[in-house]
Amino acid sequence: MTAGTPAFGRLMTADMAEQPAVLARLIARAGHDAAIVRKAMPAPLAGVVLLARGSSDNAAVFGRYLAELVTGRPTGLAAPSLYTRYHARVDWSGYLVFALSQSGATPEILTAGAAMRSAGARLIGVTNVPESPLADAVDVLLSTDAAPERAVPATKTMTSEMLLLATALGVDGMEALPSVVSEMLSDPSPADELAARWRQTDRLVITGRGLAYAAALEIALKIKETTGILAEGFSTADLRHGPIATAFAGVPVLLIDAGGLTAPDIMSLRETLRARGADVAMLPLPASGLPEPAQAIASVVRGQQVTLSLALARGVDPDAPPGLTKVTPTT
Amino acid sequence: MTAGTPAFGRLMTADMAEQPAVLARLIARAGHDAAIVRKAMPAPLAGVVLLARGSSDNAAVFGRYLAELVTGRPTGLAAPSLYTRYHARVDWSGYLVFALSQSGATPEILTAGAAMRSAGARLIGVTNVPESPLADAVDVLLSTDAAPERAVPATKTMTSEMLLLATALGVDGMEALPSVVSEMLSDPSPADELAARWRQTDRLVITGRGLAYAAALEIALKIKETTGILAEGFSTADLRHGPIATAFAGVPVLLIDAGGLTAPDIMSLRETLRARGADVAMLPLPASGLPEPAQAIASVVRGQQVTLSLALARGVDPDAPPGLTKVTPTT
Repeated sequence: MTAGTPAFGRLMTADMAEQPAVLARLIARAGHDAAIVRKAMPAPLAGVVLLARGSSDNAAVFGRYLAELVTGRPTGLAAPSLYTRYHARVDWSGYLVFALSQSGATPEILTAGAAMRSAGARLIGVTNVPESPLADAVDVLLSTDAAPERAVPATKTMTSEMLLLATALGVDGMEALPSVVSEMLSDPSPADELAARWRQTDRLVITGRGLAYAAALEIALKIKETTGILAEGFSTADLRHGPIATAFAGVPVLLIDAGGLTAPDIMSLRETLRARGADVAMLPLPASGLPEPAQAIASVVRGQQVTLSLALARGVDPDAPPGLTKVTPTT
Repeated sequence: MTAGTPAFGRLMTADMAEQPAVLARLIARAGHDAAIVRKAMPAPLAGVVLLARGSSDNAAVFGRYLAELVTGRPTGLAAPSLYTRYHARVDWSGYLVFALSQSGATPEILTAGAAMRSAGARLIGVTNVPESPLADAVDVLLSTDAAPERAVPATKTMTSEMLLLATALGVDGMEALPSVVSEMLSDPSPADELAARWRQTDRLVITGRGLAYAAALEIALKIKETTGILAEGFSTADLRHGPIATAFAGVPVLLIDAGGLTAPDIMSLRETLRARGADVAMLPLPASGLPEPAQAIASVVRGQQVTLSLALARGVDPDAPPGLTKVTPTT
């Protein structure tokens, strides 16, 4: 270990540092991946579904917004237990399903995916392990090509999954993302300041809307699994329907503004919260000019830094949170 | 006010007490409502979507499982901001959409519903206010017929919405539910014991799987909005993919076993949590023999009692949580 490198968080830091290169590889492959998805698309298309668990489920929320916008057909998230527990008999003809699994080995994703495919769905697998069992369960496989991840919390496998969904769906304007991420990684001080401010909290609310909602869910999950802080992610609209009471009762609120059409919602919520004395902060993001989908991915990177910094400030090792393993074999 | 009636929670208690009668009315109407849904169903059916916010969104999760099982076509939840913010152009032909709004007046549900309907969806409105604007926005309206709700937290409007989705989708076996709910309401002591045990916690994890997952989400929302405790609901499978770290870090866990095919998941999770010394309790439910969908609704009633009891134990008025209003006009 290099002198000065902390033992805690060394693996997570290294995984995170690879993101600019990993993201750049996917951008270079964008046209190729978009052609694969176009070719796999059933015609006529009845709908699109994303099948995932864990961090991948947050990438699925991101992909869910993009897929409905891009394909022009209703898009949803799968409920795996309908296939692994309830033995649902469903006609999946006309559906395109993205089956997401960083390990390619989560049993319930394989089981549910196989049920959908045998009932008529076209399956696109998204994984970081192309030689995994997922390869045999899908029609076509897209690799995030992020190399093995060593820390337990998913970082580069998560942002690469988000980006791959965007590029494969034909969303463009991602070119500047790797350099913005590189710049963010070179200066974690905005994240460190936030972590110092909230290092003693046991609760956190994280909120965004639309594409930033997916980022809020992912940052909340990362903080929960890595630090044990109960951080819950909300859409700003859902927050107003009740959960905002937790902010009025003292839970700090992290707001994510990824720009674009939902920015006024975030500003309005900030005013509502401030007017009632809530403890509110904006996730610090560079004024990058990135389009909203890219800025949502950049938000996740900043959230990784906040997570890492919170873990170190609380004396826990983010590389291996107590009781967690890299592959969670839910069935 | 009768002597001995507490001023706090009087309205919520009265709303809750009406549930056996409200549920019985819907069961009596079941055949009629199921016929309306059968008649409204597009043929061929491309898919089913539920559109909702707040408590209704938890009823939508419940309905999402049932609709996919019953109709045999993929079912999902809408993302309203795609229509109210992103101006998505989507072909909704072949889709059946349930638009849920207890007030019938949530602007974004009306806006998104109108966009879907004008793009080809068949819309079924579900509301407690049949004379609301929702009536003009849908093809056919189903009323929960629960009479006005006076406390801010949705109780009878929530369980009636869940039951109406089930009966309208043709799910049977609900006949015993009103009497089981009546029996539960007559003895809140199991809920009071749980509330006494956790009255000082600021955090709570609530988990179930499948239909009980919807109940977990709803009980968590009710506790958040009513008490300010940060209570997050999870599917047991999602919990194992990371958030379980919060339980290992001291967050109490409430498990919901609504019986049926997911019961072994709950037992297995209980063992995992106990083995690591987590603070775990089962939601106390009567051994009613109810089928799983009915038991999930009964779980929500027990959760209402826990919420009410927690609020009173913490000295807050559940009838009017600080900063919340009965209708949340998100756009």
